[in-house]
Amino acid sequence: MVSRRSLTIDTEKATKTTYVLGTTLTVNLIRCAPPQSKSFSIRCTPNVHYKITPPITDKNALPYPLGPNTILLITMDTVSETAFDSKLSVRYYGEKTETLGDAILHLTAVEISLDVDADRDGVVEKNNPNKASWKWGPNGHGAVLLVNCDSESINNKKPDNENSDIGKVSDLKDMSKMVLRTNGPSQLPEGYKLSMHISQSTSESVRVFRPRTNTKTENLWKYQLLKLFLKDFLMVVGTDTLTQEVPYLGGSSELEFHVEGLRFPDKDFDGLVTINLSLLEPCGKGFPETPIFTDKVVFRVSPWIMTPNTLKPVEVYVCSTEDNYSFLKSIRNLVEKSGYKLKICHEYMNRGDRWMQDELEFGYIDSPHHRFPVVLDSPRDGDLQDFPYDALLGPDFGYVTRNALNEEVSSLDSFGNLEVSPPVTVNGKNYPLGRIIIGVAFPTARKGRNMTKVVQDFLWAQKVQEPIALYSDWLFVGHVDEFMSFVPAPDRKKFRLLLASPDAGYKVFKSLQNSGLGKAEMFPGKEEAISVNDLLSDKKLQAENRYVQNCIDWNRDVLKKELGLDDEDIIDLPILFKVMEEKNEDSVPRAVAYYPDMVNMIVLGDQLGIPKPFGPQVKGVCALEKEMCSLMEPLGLKCTFIDDFAPYHKLLGEVHCGSNVLREPFTVRWWNLEL
Amino acid sequence: MVSRRSLTIDTEKATKTTYVLGTTLTVNLIRCAPPQSKSFSIRCTPNVHYKITPPITDKNALPYPLGPNTILLITMDTVSETAFDSKLSVRYYGEKTETLGDAILHLTAVEISLDVDADRDGVVEKNNPNKASWKWGPNGHGAVLLVNCDSESINNKKPDNENSDIGKVSDLKDMSKMVLRTNGPSQLPEGYKLSMHISQSTSESVRVFRPRTNTKTENLWKYQLLKLFLKDFLMVVGTDTLTQEVPYLGGSSELEFHVEGLRFPDKDFDGLVTINLSLLEPCGKGFPETPIFTDKVVFRVSPWIMTPNTLKPVEVYVCSTEDNYSFLKSIRNLVEKSGYKLKICHEYMNRGDRWMQDELEFGYIDSPHHRFPVVLDSPRDGDLQDFPYDALLGPDFGYVTRNALNEEVSSLDSFGNLEVSPPVTVNGKNYPLGRIIIGVAFPTARKGRNMTKVVQDFLWAQKVQEPIALYSDWLFVGHVDEFMSFVPAPDRKKFRLLLASPDAGYKVFKSLQNSGLGKAEMFPGKEEAISVNDLLSDKKLQAENRYVQNCIDWNRDVLKKELGLDDEDIIDLPILFKVMEEKNEDSVPRAVAYYPDMVNMIVLGDQLGIPKPFGPQVKGVCALEKEMCSLMEPLGLKCTFIDDFAPYHKLLGEVHCGSNVLREPFTVRWWNLEL
Ligand SMILES: [Ca+2]
Ligand SMILES: [Ca+2]
Ligand SMILES: [Ca+2]
Ligand SMILES: [Ca+2]
Repeated sequence: MVSRRSLTIDTEKATKTTYVLGTTLTVNLIRCAPPQSKSFSIRCTPNVHYKITPPITDKNALPYPLGPNTILLITMDTVSETAFDSKLSVRYYGEKTETLGDAILHLTAVEISLDVDADRDGVVEKNNPNKASWKWGPNGHGAVLLVNCDSESINNKKPDNENSDIGKVSDLKDMSKMVLRTNGPSQLPEGYKLSMHISQSTSESVRVFRPRTNTKTENLWKYQLLKLFLKDFLMVVGTDTLTQEVPYLGGSSELEFHVEGLRFPDKDFDGLVTINLSLLEPCGKGFPETPIFTDKVVFRVSPWIMTPNTLKPVEVYVCSTEDNYSFLKSIRNLVEKSGYKLKICHEYMNRGDRWMQDELEFGYIDSPHHRFPVVLDSPRDGDLQDFPYDALLGPDFGYVTRNALNEEVSSLDSFGNLEVSPPVTVNGKNYPLGRIIIGVAFPTARKGRNMTKVVQDFLWAQKVQEPIALYSDWLFVGHVDEFMSFVPAPDRKKFRLLLASPDAGYKVFKSLQNSGLGKAEMFPGKEEAISVNDLLSDKKLQAENRYVQNCIDWNRDVLKKELGLDDEDIIDLPILFKVMEEKNEDSVPRAVAYYPDMVNMIVLGDQLGIPKPFGPQVKGVCALEKEMCSLMEPLGLKCTFIDDFAPYHKLLGEVHCGSNVLREPFTVRWWNLEL
Repeated sequence: MVSRRSLTIDTEKATKTTYVLGTTLTVNLIRCAPPQSKSFSIRCTPNVHYKITPPITDKNALPYPLGPNTILLITMDTVSETAFDSKLSVRYYGEKTETLGDAILHLTAVEISLDVDADRDGVVEKNNPNKASWKWGPNGHGAVLLVNCDSESINNKKPDNENSDIGKVSDLKDMSKMVLRTNGPSQLPEGYKLSMHISQSTSESVRVFRPRTNTKTENLWKYQLLKLFLKDFLMVVGTDTLTQEVPYLGGSSELEFHVEGLRFPDKDFDGLVTINLSLLEPCGKGFPETPIFTDKVVFRVSPWIMTPNTLKPVEVYVCSTEDNYSFLKSIRNLVEKSGYKLKICHEYMNRGDRWMQDELEFGYIDSPHHRFPVVLDSPRDGDLQDFPYDALLGPDFGYVTRNALNEEVSSLDSFGNLEVSPPVTVNGKNYPLGRIIIGVAFPTARKGRNMTKVVQDFLWAQKVQEPIALYSDWLFVGHVDEFMSFVPAPDRKKFRLLLASPDAGYKVFKSLQNSGLGKAEMFPGKEEAISVNDLLSDKKLQAENRYVQNCIDWNRDVLKKELGLDDEDIIDLPILFKVMEEKNEDSVPRAVAYYPDMVNMIVLGDQLGIPKPFGPQVKGVCALEKEMCSLMEPLGLKCTFIDDFAPYHKLLGEVHCGSNVLREPFTVRWWNLEL
């Protein structure tokens, strides 16, 4: 906003202009002075105020001497009742104080304020001094916008941000309110206009609507009633429309706008959106109008936010397949016992693709006025690919995806390879929404699989859960959930990081051998059965697990540093891996779990659904389950071991890979982060 | 850099690893303890140091009790002379302090530091603690990179950054030095490797070279001599090569690298570049190596910096055409009088295109070790289009351009529409390199011409001269240099902003009329001649100039705000405009100068080359020239009026449009800005 405006007045012709409350008009008095002018005097109507700079030192020296840079500063403090009801005139005098001419200025005063909820309390306050900038933190300011990525319709649905008009009144609640408050005469003086305008790049991120009918909102009750039946909204600015006139309603009025976010922050979009409103002044017949006052407001688009295992579950998602009946039954028991909802994706939809974790990631978007869950659809696109769009997108359930361009999608693009930590503090820096965790290749690898760039760019651009890149390419499937998970804990940082650990695994087997149980069998009763002694004497397996432990330790060191963890915050779970016999295209050995990978669990409050490991039985109890319970139960967690051997483990996934959990959002609001 | 590394030791097999000075190895002692271990003791060679956490409270209680989270922290303070010359062993004891096993760790200690000139003094210091981050300001840190956009060759030239190899040794001076300092045994233990690596996106911005011959630089003099004859450099990382092994030279060694910047900061590139160096450890036969130590350095690419009128000229560029002989002579006189160099672009090159200002903008790039001028080639591409590349690009003269994509290039893309202010301070914020100024359409205009997006994006991305967008679309040609310029001044902010002012123009003519000189002729002796009386009675011209003054005043208000100017910092020059009769495509009236536009001047130190206005003669002196001199001379400036009427003014340009000035760089270095 340029709050000081230069104005030229004229002794030959009266000048007319419109003044906006809060601004200052500056008139260079020498510019329009008749030749030989030496001094001047000023008269004005009571609501017009003026100052002279440089200040007149001798106030009694009337008329005032006219200097080479004498500037008149004009302000007004009340709005006009009719056009040009206020006036200021400057009289110029010659050497002998003879009158040389009068420059007359007719003024109309109006009040104009484009308003948003810049203090984030859900109410659009009047003319917040901070409305034109955005600042993070509890003492910050700046309005918030949601990407309207849900679908108000259930039939023929598509995300609302792909529709250029408003189909249903319910869609308004996904938008942010913006109010144009004006006060002044019943009409603007002839030729004046109000214009809303945005930049070309902003037009890709936002649309602004208003009711087609101009309604004075002096009678708010009547307006609210009317709005219930209003389905007729007009796009003011947005896609392909950068500027448009908006009506001036006259008197003291409020014109309500609805602002729709169209896209998430990304590599080429920082999430900030500016909307301007200008008062245009006519410049004479045939000339374009000049903006003489511009007010602006700034919004930030809500980032997409992931929910860690420590948040309360709402719904658990699994697939039903022809071979997973008993697995499904175990999950149902666990979920119902915990009191959450189970949602089953049936075969006609999943087409045999059981990897519910991999096709999508649940998150949400949040604003002071509204929030809803948003599913991030993976570019993986297995047979489950239609599920996020067809089954999840709907009213108050948003959808977003990123399509890999000119890049091969790899197994690392499955969202078992996308997780998020609980809240952490690292060297004094707070991450109250945790940090996103993904798996990639070693940066030193010549060849390697990575999460596709467009998804990585998207995740980094959300900013509020700054991602950590781990090394997961050492795994055949390549997902971080194959070697790590988080569980809630009552003490310390309120969670523990669980890591798969071949060292811890060997420790269990050596203890058995040491206790004379070397003949006990791993995989008892299965064709894979093998004695503890035989397992421990397998030097190849040992070498493979040494390598695996190295890889996990590398990740452990990164996680300790990036999440600010101590060794006491980490629990090593006894899990062995083996290297796949078949060589892959880049002939790098890659690992899979040797027995069901217990870290790949589902966490539902204090209930853990853990892949049943089929370890050696000691007095009728599985030694691995017993060890697992002894590690989890002191934290107040309850272990349920779920048999996923045939339908998941043998297909190189486990319980976590085969499920997904929609969780409650954080109570911490993202705009309160200090970034 | 992960400076703490988890390590597993083993009682069954000795462990070997390499330790990097400054890091810590952490060993979880319980992990590898034989079953039933209750306590432990440690022995090590003198150069190995260790701590135990949680700390042993009773130091005399040997052997130490083994807790569930007993961690051993190992450091070393001198490098090894031979591989694995150091050792640490852990002995585990049972209930009755009987020995259960010994875990042996063989250690090689090395020192590794990837170094840059992070303190910006032109010397690559050793292991600067800030080398991995970048901070603006005199107390900041971080190395600097140049885009190697000049051409070492004169024949068959193209910018060196488009060549993937180094053609001439002279090219090394455009690159930043980076040194890998290592210390340790003559060879790394078997299987260990050093690897340099960068990310995919960094590989678009940088290339790293080293001499093909590995030279120990203990004998620096010999090395320098050798380098004179070395033309054989190897690309280590860069385009299409993200990672590559680099040699370990043994003993105390320095390996020198040359880092070449490939692209300027832009919308998709913040200018920061990270280069990593890792030590890889073998993981056993058939397994990929693991990075066990990573050092990294950060560079920022120098922005492209423009030079305002207040900087000392070096060379003046003008075109020679078949009709501008006397203009050229006047310019030559002015330039030679001022003591600068004149460079003439001849007709075979300019093909009649005389608008030297519009085809290019001079700037420069700067680093602690080197700097050179860089021409920004406009997407205008008139008949002068080959000049910047063919005539300017060369050794220590860089070239950069931006090509408009899917966008019409308009007259606003000419660089008469791209200027830069002298240094300013605005509300306490310093702009010691000034601010870039461009002209665009009113943001409220439905249709309007703008500077093309790719050029705007480029200018904003340079950051150090934060641009200001003025409104220039009201002009037929549409360039900011048609209504504004800057001249040096001895007082106040050390400069004045000059603005064209129809009000000031009319003031001159009214004064003449008032003094009885109404019959004096504007354009005396030309076919356009018109008396002052007739000029003043032209109501249409008055209305047009009222509109023009409005447009300029809008810009005046923006410039006052964005440059922190007072009215005393601005001088109004007496210039009238007229509106073009022929309607343009969007049928908006647009203005051109009515008589030669004096603000469109060339500024060479205290010498101003001003378009000769051909105003009314009073006692043999042009009233407009007289007024102009009376405004400029008090500032110590000398006015030379140059007749550009036929070859420039009639073609809608003036002296500034027809010339360009290469100036000396700022003494302020861009990295010392506080951003
Ligand atoms: Ca919606
Ligand atoms: Ca996930
Ligand atoms: Ca070069
Ligand atoms: Ca220029």
